[in-house]
Amino acid sequence: MRVLRIAVAQMNPTVGDLNGNVRRIIEWLGEARKAQVDLVAFPELAITGYLPEDLLFKPRFVNDNVRALQEVVQVCHDVVAVVGYVARSAQIESEVSRPSIDSNARQPLYNAAALIARCKIVGNCHKRYFPSDGDERRYFRSGQQPPVLVVNGMTIGVTIGEDLWHSDEFTQAQVAAGVEVMVNLSASPFQVGKSRSRERCLTTWAHTNGVIATVANMVGGQDELVFDGNSLILDQSGRVIARGGAFKEELLMADVSLDSVKHGGRASGRNSVRSQKIVSAVDRCLVTLPMTKGKRTPIVPGLAEPLGEIEEMYQALVLAVKDYVQKNGFKRVAIGLSGGVDSALTAVVAADALGAANVLGIFMPSPYTSHESEEDAVELARSLGIELSIIPITPTFEVYRRSLAPSFDQRPPDRTEENLQARVRGNILMAVSNKFGHLVLTTGNKSELSVGYSTLYGDMAGGFAVIKDVSKSRVYELARFRNAQGPSPVIPQRTLDRPPSAELKPDQKDEDTLPPYTVLDPILQAYVEEDRSLEEIVEAGFDRATVARVMRMVDHSEFKRRQAPIGVKITYRALGKDRRMPITNGYCGLEE
Amino acid sequence: MRVLRIAVAQMNPTVGDLNGNVRRIIEWLGEARKAQVDLVAFPELAITGYLPEDLLFKPRFVNDNVRALQEVVQVCHDVVAVVGYVARSAQIESEVSRPSIDSNARQPLYNAAALIARCKIVGNCHKRYFPSDGDERRYFRSGQQPPVLVVNGMTIGVTIGEDLWHSDEFTQAQVAAGVEVMVNLSASPFQVGKSRSRERCLTTWAHTNGVIATVANMVGGQDELVFDGNSLILDQSGRVIARGGAFKEELLMADVSLDSVKHGGRASGRNSVRSQKIVSAVDRCLVTLPMTKGKRTPIVPGLAEPLGEIEEMYQALVLAVKDYVQKNGFKRVAIGLSGGVDSALTAVVAADALGAANVLGIFMPSPYTSHESEEDAVELARSLGIELSIIPITPTFEVYRRSLAPSFDQRPPDRTEENLQARVRGNILMAVSNKFGHLVLTTGNKSELSVGYSTLYGDMAGGFAVIKDVSKSRVYELARFRNAQGPSPVIPQRTLDRPPSAELKPDQKDEDTLPPYTVLDPILQAYVEEDRSLEEIVEAGFDRATVARVMRMVDHSEFKRRQAPIGVKITYRALGKDRRMPITNGYCGLEE
Repeated sequence: MRVLRIAVAQMNPTVGDLNGNVRRIIEWLGEARKAQVDLVAFPELAITGYLPEDLLFKPRFVNDNVRALQEVVQVCHDVVAVVGYVARSAQIESEVSRPSIDSNARQPLYNAAALIARCKIVGNCHKRYFPSDGDERRYFRSGQQPPVLVVNGMTIGVTIGEDLWHSDEFTQAQVAAGVEVMVNLSASPFQVGKSRSRERCLTTWAHTNGVIATVANMVGGQDELVFDGNSLILDQSGRVIARGGAFKEELLMADVSLDSVKHGGRASGRNSVRSQKIVSAVDRCLVTLPMTKGKRTPIVPGLAEPLGEIEEMYQALVLAVKDYVQKNGFKRVAIGLSGGVDSALTAVVAADALGAANVLGIFMPSPYTSHESEEDAVELARSLGIELSIIPITPTFEVYRRSLAPSFDQRPPDRTEENLQARVRGNILMAVSNKFGHLVLTTGNKSELSVGYSTLYGDMAGGFAVIKDVSKSRVYELARFRNAQGPSPVIPQRTLDRPPSAELKPDQKDEDTLPPYTVLDPILQAYVEEDRSLEEIVEAGFDRATVARVMRMVDHSEFKRRQAPIGVKITYRALGKDRRMPITNGYCGLEE
Repeated sequence: MRVLRIAVAQMNPTVGDLNGNVRRIIEWLGEARKAQVDLVAFPELAITGYLPEDLLFKPRFVNDNVRALQEVVQVCHDVVAVVGYVARSAQIESEVSRPSIDSNARQPLYNAAALIARCKIVGNCHKRYFPSDGDERRYFRSGQQPPVLVVNGMTIGVTIGEDLWHSDEFTQAQVAAGVEVMVNLSASPFQVGKSRSRERCLTTWAHTNGVIATVANMVGGQDELVFDGNSLILDQSGRVIARGGAFKEELLMADVSLDSVKHGGRASGRNSVRSQKIVSAVDRCLVTLPMTKGKRTPIVPGLAEPLGEIEEMYQALVLAVKDYVQKNGFKRVAIGLSGGVDSALTAVVAADALGAANVLGIFMPSPYTSHESEEDAVELARSLGIELSIIPITPTFEVYRRSLAPSFDQRPPDRTEENLQARVRGNILMAVSNKFGHLVLTTGNKSELSVGYSTLYGDMAGGFAVIKDVSKSRVYELARFRNAQGPSPVIPQRTLDRPPSAELKPDQKDEDTLPPYTVLDPILQAYVEEDRSLEEIVEAGFDRATVARVMRMVDHSEFKRRQAPIGVKITYRALGKDRRMPITNGYCGLEE
């Protein structure tokens, strides 16, 4: 029986921390060796973290990454490892030195996988297709036909990220060349529901090709991205035989039997002339491993239960906050608590991520703050077990007004005074941050940030925007979900029941300015996330004037979003990361 | 004699303002017709402006752009026009609908030039190569071999942007196919010295190929970019026969004689089999224009004098400010004047861009503000003729301190109190902005933003950062340059002579915290703009500890830059636009 013991190291690297990442890889190689594994797959760009962005323009960084890989290579005696790193192209200098007014020509790099065996790099696979956001294309060239790896007679193909989903010649050539196990290295950022479609795609792929398939996906938070893990090992019928947990590191292992894999894949019979041609383009890296392992104790593969939509969103936020805070060297966070649901949810996520002792709530009342808000903030802090400071803003607000009065010359109060209150709060939070070294978490949700219902340098002031990509409707869902988890609810029920208000003037309600969130959120979904036109949204059943007003609010608040702190991406189209709009923009899309 | 009367419309479009851009194009076609021009070239993406960014993901926007182009097509009776727009690919649907977990697959677009004659689009050219920043690759596919245009027997080739600088088969095929005039549509963002290298490259190109060459470059500000114009018409020896002015709209015209252009270019004799093959790949669009124009009065081509480095930088800032302010619907700007050189230069640029009546200076003294600073700010406002408000920050600052005292629990003053002063100033500026609708211009320079010597939500608060890409050393150069222009200097000499200070604590000087700017600026140039390593910078003659300290300051202040307002790019590597660093970043590059 030909059995391959395969392991997937579902790893949480830190971008740029080459030494730390290598240390972690080597630890895991040790564990894999102990478990008598034949082949370990690490995620895409495991050495550098995903994505190092313009660090890739520093030649020294690329050198250091190659050196870091060599440290890994040296410990791979009796195990085959597939490790994501950044490879330099050999072909170059003439090309780079071509005359150009751009002068940005740089050394060509590849998003690569090193195939490592017997302390040598026996082959390299270069990623060919890049995600549509275009970010990888800033750095990497498209790769050519990757080799296959033959380990003790078992044929293994390697792809990186997107490449597996493009059923072009390059993947098909590997299958036609007799690949029995396809290993995909991935750094696939979380978005709601994506792990399920990834699993569906992989199932189809394995079943269609009759090839064992595995995805080694990254885990962890990196700035706006959070990786969900959910790595997979599927047999040749497309059945999931191992599934990594969501949002946690794990060494996922399984024994896969290659005996019933049809050589050349299910497609091998057809199209044989063409197959022959493309097969000849595939290099083979032959590896013989010392089979001194003897009889191995069978592995019971991990098979984590997939999470539901609300739970995976919640856990994405928790891990993203934990990693952003800790990887950036912070310990504690400060959060402005208003008594509303946004700041309540943010505080609960932070407490779950960092422990209640590392969360400081600051309640900053004004004359427009209701008694209920204060009670709810105090109640939340109590039930959550976090420290709460109360710092009134009224004296400061009043001094600002007096200082500005000569310039304002009797003009009536307007948005200016509302913003000023928010900015006094922002300054207080930042002062506490500066004095004690806490990171300020902002509390704005996606609905209000989309329409600009937020104050730049006010409630938008802080280092990390936890629920930036969470619509108001989803904020409520997440709050209810979390309340249902514990022995008793942590967020006061009244916070969930009261109509939302910014409390920046007497008796203010969000609905004075915005459509109800039940109307606003679907319009935003259509306009911001799906690029629908006015006509299409109206056709879906919304009032034309309301849609036009929302579109204008979105378009006119682009300048605010450009200065917003980064936050956690959980949808297909996160503000900032995924929606890059010009500020100077004469297009309104409202003409007939 | 075969003479082509060629015109270049050096145009200033607004991104997204399809109607406005088309109106302007049609006006210029009218002028060209009056001047009996044969062919008018407009810049790259003239219809949409450069770059529409994610507007391109809206199907309706792309439709509207095609419709806008049709309006232009309809007026091109007796003149040939080459107009930049966004073209949809014909091939698609099957490809777009391929299964993908990315689900971002979008309709393929091209950065295109429409060849328009006799009220028809007779051909299309699709850009093949993209700038190395990667932004265009987010939206556009690479084009295939473009056609050539034969107008009354005269053969014209068209390229877009970068394509001309890649001497690959596609450009060479056009030359080999007998192109006599090469028209390049361009949206080449300004950076210091780039117009000169563009001219050098074009001279070499025209001379080498023996082909008449012209670049139609865009002009105007668009968010972080400013386009400098400097369009060119060169004869087949590489001599400049017409040059557009810098930073202004202009219809540049010249008569070019094709009689001495060698058919097939200078390279035609060589390599004839290969030439033959690539020539056959070139489509020809044949156009016969009605030659009813009769004998034309000869044109005297415009030949603007190129600007020097300092002057072009200055004018870039002026046009960028003017366009950002006006295209975004603002009229007036507010600027915090400190009595220092950065805010002085910003105010002078703004006054030159918008008129002194549209600039409001706000001086906000604290107990640490020197008497000299106040005098210099007042003197600047007087000499510039701008309005000056004085709003002291001390009362507000003191109330903040009292409000925070219980939380701060006797901790000594530190950076917190310095930032707080800057933030009170930021709030006052924003309050004035909110109340009167002025745009706040920030005054931070590139040196301080690089090392994080600036306060988020404080001096960084505002809509547009005028000198964000100008090092402190260059700030002085620009200030001296501008002082030398007028009948008398506008910036007080003492502002230029006093050592720079943030004046946030007693007797503070920049040099208490930073190396002298004569040391700091070259280190930043090497580290930030040239991606040099510690070792390389030390080798260039700088102190290792100082270099390491500067590198750390740059790396640790990335989070501030991420929330900075956009500003004008004038160098190869502007902060923000051109330097995309992870915030969570474990790489320090300081290990031996």
